[in-house]
Amino acid sequence: MISRFYEALEARDWSALEDLLDVDVVYEVPQTRERVLGRGAYVHFNREYPGDWHLEVRAVHEDASGGAAEVYFCVDGHELTNVALFRFTEAGLIGSVRDFWPESYEPPEGREHLVERY
Amino acid sequence: MISRFYEALEARDWSALEDLLDVDVVYEVPQTRERVLGRGAYVHFNREYPGDWHLEVRAVHEDASGGAAEVYFCVDGHELTNVALFRFTEAGLIGSVRDFWPESYEPPEGREHLVERY
Repeated sequence: MISRFYEALEARDWSALEDLLDVDVVYEVPQTRERVLGRGAYVHFNREYPGDWHLEVRAVHEDASGGAAEVYFCVDGHELTNVALFRFTEAGLIGSVRDFWPESYEPPEGREHLVERY
Repeated sequence: MISRFYEALEARDWSALEDLLDVDVVYEVPQTRERVLGRGAYVHFNREYPGDWHLEVRAVHEDASGGAAEVYFCVDGHELTNVALFRFTEAGLIGSVRDFWPESYEPPEGREHLVERY
């Protein structure tokens, strides 16, 4: 299900994307508190999203009620890591997507004796 | 499996945690490029982690090869969102953990007509 979602996105196959989404799908970016409500608005959001973007899925796991993916996006030449959590409806459609865009940062002091850097 | 992992962490039950981990478990924080290699070092990392921390699991999904969780941590009074991706070994142990700590940020310009804020 989640793999098909990303295949449809990368292919800009909006009709295939629509077929995977519940009519009341909720899309959220918790880091920015942005939200898109409903299938029509969410397909529109993806269709109109600015810039030249491509994606590659690194990992997908799912069970009957939902799942998650780790995905690499290239947006206008910039690489971004994306982690998304999905919930499925009882009808087996995507009912919610919580989309995270974690950025690089310097580790806090105090744990450097417990880790190595790569 | 992932729920048991977080239960063991919150309970500081290091022996229960150890039982879930492959001897060669790899723990990574991709945002800081920190890594901990091996079960002993990873249990030590959690045991010695500085500060007073507690966690609450918001969502867990897993299949035979791995899964993901969205978790809220409270560390010394600060709330942090955590999203972690797990891979399981063929023996059914945790073989890798990729731990993300996405922070709040302001949305980029150009998509404000496609979303609402909450």
